Amino acid sequence: MSGSVGLARVLEPAGVLPQAAWRLDASPEIGPDEVRIRVRRLNLDAASYRQLAEKHAGDGAAIRAEVLGIVETRGKMHNPVTGSGGMLIGVVEEVGPESPLPVKPGDRVATLVSLTLTPLRITDGLAGWDGLSEQVPAEGTAILFGRSVVGVLPDDLPPELALAVYDVCGAPALTDRIVRGYDRPTVVVLGGAGKSGSLSLAAAKRANARTVAVVVSETERATLQKAGLADRIAIADARDPVAVAEAVGEPADVTVVCVDVPGCEHGAILATAPGGTVIFFSMATSFPAAALGAEGLAADVTMLVGNGYVPGHAEFAVGLLREVPAVRALFEARIAAD
Amino acid sequence: MSGSVGLARVLEPAGVLPQAAWRLDASPEIGPDEVRIRVRRLNLDAASYRQLAEKHAGDGAAIRAEVLGIVETRGKMHNPVTGSGGMLIGVVEEVGPESPLPVKPGDRVATLVSLTLTPLRITDGLAGWDGLSEQVPAEGTAILFGRSVVGVLPDDLPPELALAVYDVCGAPALTDRIVRGYDRPTVVVLGGAGKSGSLSLAAAKRANARTVAVVVSETERATLQKAGLADRIAIADARDPVAVAEAVGEPADVTVVCVDVPGCEHGAILATAPGGTVIFFSMATSFPAAALGAEGLAADVTMLVGNGYVPGHAEFAVGLLREVPAVRALFEARIAAD
Repeated sequence: MSGSVGLARVLEPAGVLPQAAWRLDASPEIGPDEVRIRVRRLNLDAASYRQLAEKHAGDGAAIRAEVLGIVETRGKMHNPVTGSGGMLIGVVEEVGPESPLPVKPGDRVATLVSLTLTPLRITDGLAGWDGLSEQVPAEGTAILFGRSVVGVLPDDLPPELALAVYDVCGAPALTDRIVRGYDRPTVVVLGGAGKSGSLSLAAAKRANARTVAVVVSETERATLQKAGLADRIAIADARDPVAVAEAVGEPADVTVVCVDVPGCEHGAILATAPGGTVIFFSMATSFPAAALGAEGLAADVTMLVGNGYVPGHAEFAVGLLREVPAVRALFEARIAAD
Repeated sequence: MSGSVGLARVLEPAGVLPQAAWRLDASPEIGPDEVRIRVRRLNLDAASYRQLAEKHAGDGAAIRAEVLGIVETRGKMHNPVTGSGGMLIGVVEEVGPESPLPVKPGDRVATLVSLTLTPLRITDGLAGWDGLSEQVPAEGTAILFGRSVVGVLPDDLPPELALAVYDVCGAPALTDRIVRGYDRPTVVVLGGAGKSGSLSLAAAKRANARTVAVVVSETERATLQKAGLADRIAIADARDPVAVAEAVGEPADVTVVCVDVPGCEHGAILATAPGGTVIFFSMATSFPAAALGAEGLAADVTMLVGNGYVPGHAEFAVGLLREVPAVRALFEARIAAD
């Protein structure tokens, strides 16, 4: 099992898994159960890109230089501040004879594991990227281990669209699973107009939930209204717990946090009824803030770390996109605006 | 509701709850729904004390000075590095006319909410503390809000013992709840010889689970063996995921993380079977490491943020202590060694 989780790629510190490593060996030669991918595009995690953009005040050249520096230093695109990465798409170049992954050379694929554990080499200096978007055209190589998750890109969707959906595909699948554990629940989604938010709303609605979206602006409200994914839409700053609780009104059975900024834990907890569940999908979630916040509020709520892996999650999310034209329209608008 | 969660005590930044605040107003005058406690002893969170002790290389005077500095600066004992606090015991001094808490002046109580949200003033310079233990004799005042949790100390237990149990009482109660959702499960407790670990083992055993403890040393193994709380005891460094998985063997239905050091997420995930649950009680847990680790390992496990509040948790934990003499003996030995 050791080889299959990529231990041989860990340079420092020794003994940890690739995700926890400071530095990986990103050399393109593959081991017997590895797969090498010719990289086409990176999709940076929203929390990671936001941190970089804020640090460099939107200076694209500086953002690009820092991304290159991180990949060069760490052998992976693992933002040391946010701890998050993103995903990539590319073409399978070589498959080791012992790889259990269902891919062959020439397949157009998206990695469904985080960039924080994917050995990555950039060879074009990111010359095709202006640093102003999460979507990063890139040339280079990436490595997949035996125990990994990869999705072949669907033929009927543009690759940017598939990548954007795959990036957040754990959210609707886990939302569906949790929502079905309640009887006609109310589901609140913080950040309902975003990618993971809109897919989570669509999943909850299909699972017969009453859906409430909390968004940050009148513009987002108007967009989401048109999509018809939420039975009610409220405007509030997700970092303001009292404002969130007031906007939501009657506490929810399930609250889904899809806002990629720090400080949304307490609003989510206050918005959730005793016996309810909070699912944290934002990588900006603070573990102690959630644990101590619930304790401090004497809130008997179940709090889930949003696991990015649920069996069948990629197909589930792509299925939602095909079934609900409004979700597809939201994604296409976001990609066009990017 | 605003008043009852302590918003009026938040000095900066405005609008957040006391736990998220940088600085609280710790003045001893109480509002109508507040309670003032004359402080007797603080019990620092294990992760917090460990960080302070390591930073100051065990220099007690320096540790004491830093704790005093934190309380002076923030109006609460909220370690800015670990994000964690601890608890306190004291005597109720004044109860506001609108307080819903079931206490009266003169009651000996323990706060069951974190010190990270408890307005605290220290008036004796911690003169009675050598800085070398998590247990901190202290004089001063603390404030409880309307929506808070407080436990009257049981008459049959020494206050240090009750405080040590209350400090971790969320762990056995939540373990019990989760374990009962499985049919005769295997439960692995990382850090089974510690306070929350031994109580979680006892709770799992009483709920008919097969229990496996992972401990760090032969000494801990011997101690725990004598207590008879674990059906099997393995020695491994919880930060080494491969070692943990090998030590555990057959993956568990429920894995409980009670090791207060960073880097235990991946071992816990690898030790858990598909469909199983990981409960993270350590404040040193990293949210992104858990979320991205499970995704990277394609692990279909439910991951819970260990909520320190479960209704009836204090009585539940004290009940276990009374019922299981071995647990009480473990606690008494730890307190004596402290």
